[in-house]
Amino acid sequence: MRTGADLAAIRERRPLVHQITNYVVMNETANATLALGALPVMAHALEEVEEMASGAGALVLNIGTLSRHWIEAMLLAAKAANRAGVPVVLDPVGAGATNLRTETAKRLLDETEIAVVRGNAAEVATLVGRQSEIRGVESIGAGDSGSELAKTAAATLGCVVAVTGPVDHVSDGDHAVAVANGHELLATVSGTGCMSSAITGCFLAVAADRPLEAATEALVAFGLAGEYAAQGATGPGSFHVNLYDALYNLDPGTLDERARIDG
Amino acid sequence: MRTGADLAAIRERRPLVHQITNYVVMNETANATLALGALPVMAHALEEVEEMASGAGALVLNIGTLSRHWIEAMLLAAKAANRAGVPVVLDPVGAGATNLRTETAKRLLDETEIAVVRGNAAEVATLVGRQSEIRGVESIGAGDSGSELAKTAAATLGCVVAVTGPVDHVSDGDHAVAVANGHELLATVSGTGCMSSAITGCFLAVAADRPLEAATEALVAFGLAGEYAAQGATGPGSFHVNLYDALYNLDPGTLDERARIDG
Amino acid sequence: MRTGADLAAIRERRPLVHQITNYVVMNETANATLALGALPVMAHALEEVEEMASGAGALVLNIGTLSRHWIEAMLLAAKAANRAGVPVVLDPVGAGATNLRTETAKRLLDETEIAVVRGNAAEVATLVGRQSEIRGVESIGAGDSGSELAKTAAATLGCVVAVTGPVDHVSDGDHAVAVANGHELLATVSGTGCMSSAITGCFLAVAADRPLEAATEALVAFGLAGEYAAQGATGPGSFHVNLYDALYNLDPGTLDERARIDG
Repeated sequence: MRTGADLAAIRERRPLVHQITNYVVMNETANATLALGALPVMAHALEEVEEMASGAGALVLNIGTLSRHWIEAMLLAAKAANRAGVPVVLDPVGAGATNLRTETAKRLLDETEIAVVRGNAAEVATLVGRQSEIRGVESIGAGDSGSELAKTAAATLGCVVAVTGPVDHVSDGDHAVAVANGHELLATVSGTGCMSSAITGCFLAVAADRPLEAATEALVAFGLAGEYAAQGATGPGSFHVNLYDALYNLDPGTLDERARIDG
Repeated sequence: MRTGADLAAIRERRPLVHQITNYVVMNETANATLALGALPVMAHALEEVEEMASGAGALVLNIGTLSRHWIEAMLLAAKAANRAGVPVVLDPVGAGATNLRTETAKRLLDETEIAVVRGNAAEVATLVGRQSEIRGVESIGAGDSGSELAKTAAATLGCVVAVTGPVDHVSDGDHAVAVANGHELLATVSGTGCMSSAITGCFLAVAADRPLEAATEALVAFGLAGEYAAQGATGPGSFHVNLYDALYNLDPGTLDERARIDG
Repeated sequence: MRTGADLAAIRERRPLVHQITNYVVMNETANATLALGALPVMAHALEEVEEMASGAGALVLNIGTLSRHWIEAMLLAAKAANRAGVPVVLDPVGAGATNLRTETAKRLLDETEIAVVRGNAAEVATLVGRQSEIRGVESIGAGDSGSELAKTAAATLGCVVAVTGPVDHVSDGDHAVAVANGHELLATVSGTGCMSSAITGCFLAVAADRPLEAATEALVAFGLAGEYAAQGATGPGSFHVNLYDALYNLDPGTLDERARIDG
């Protein structure tokens, strides 16, 4: 891992991270991206997504509030990104909760080349045809098999898969890495999963040839920011505010020594 | 009232609160729902709203930023909720400000079964054909007849009606309850009315057979959170942050004794 | 300049500022508008924009997340505003980044009467056919010619143009005013440019006959709020929160003496 060096590269190069994401978290993922040091842009019109995605450093697709035109836009954007060699992150929000979400996530995986899938255990389990317990967009199953799930999903889907939860598990099908950074208050703010996908896009933009590392580093950086944000927080509101400050103040020089990685 | 017991039930059962709401407040109502202890989900696609609403604990409809597809989605979702016995909250944002909003709110009330309407005085007055003064989505009339308005509207519309303002008035047509909890800083943050509708959905999800109580309890809980949030706030920004912390930290054991209810 | 007097008028009259803006910043611009003292309303349906815009004190158009229906709505709303004598602000977010954005901004300028354009250097340069460097929605060129650019653009486009950056430049084609108020943390929060456009709408609503002054005063007020917000901020999160508090607490009595205006 070279989390610190890659974060420094993000701040130096300021890659554009094109996000086609859900209405709920747009402001949050834009601000998290900017706080980390990259440049966010949101664009979903069929008329412009190809142009925007082709010129980006990474494309992040998030299916949290779908509708027909948005699905078409995601497909168009991902194909343009594929042609231009721009890495694509997929956040399958709520896969398993409705057929539309499950089918759309699968369609994106089938018809385009995804570099990294970042989801919770229920969403990822759904994508590989396993039973899952999801309530809305929240994974409520037991899921102590995160490592195994990530590995199987990565092998099945042919991309890097990050299963996030109290401990995150990232795999490329061969290796699996566990990331223990993070804080329980992350689960009390809506959209922190989506933010971690956006951050994954930021790291992927400077390490497109190392998707396993990029996905892992993103979760280390975001998890550490969560740990810092919890200091002095008195609930989800103050934690949420602190989170942006913490992302902004992450010190590349100490990231790697504070990473709690296994594998 | 059993505000504390119902809040405890929300945190225990974590009901899913499906919200089809406006773009401005989506993040706020999701975070308020989550901070209180329930699980928010936003979904508006015609292809999935019935599936999502049927499995939810409550459905919240908010007409703050309408367009044609969203109106259709609200109707579909509400009908599915009705069939499944899922209680529906309607927030008629800006009814009276444009014909589209007035007509849509009326249509939802005519074609589906609404358990609770939560709006400001101008919006509710509009729904029962009274004169109202609204500027955009803000009620600017005098409106000292909140109690009478709530009672008349509840009787006319055949559901529980909550008219919020400096003092809130909730009625089922027979009884009217006044809730004096709250703080003037609530009026300085956009979307606090919408948040109170979302919170109403949370309480209704655990007390579907007691809509008058659920609506009242929601306003007690939200109003109290506003009172706590005002402590140490230096303006709308810090108040807004504190509000999520306060919702998260609401103590079921003290809610009922701090309720300022009349009626 | 009469920034203080105009702010006092905003708080006294509470003008409605109708905003058709992008999904990312809707909550932010609504809250900034409300914190300053005006009343925000978001409405984009073809069926209601004319009604809403006609009754507003100002209309703010922001092309940050376009799609076809939204473009039509902006055109309809602007024409209705023109007929009703309601001043219109245009924020050409990302003009230069994609053809859709460039063409839409130009179309709005061609087909409707815009009172004030507020954009960054790259966006404004694009509108007058100059070379510009934009990454997503961020101006990354050198652009030390802000004053000249504002003046040329104002003369070419036939309206007041505000080019914002470390120093802002506002011109009506004849005169150019530089505003040095502001803080570098403004660049770390997504949507602060959009907020400044919304604030421009607020001032224009009480000074429609003085668009050069209104645009300048808005940037003084917003810049000063940024300076206050930076006090005690430890990053973009706390700065963002402080910004709403600062807008709310702006003292009309001291605004003009703290303005750092040149020209």
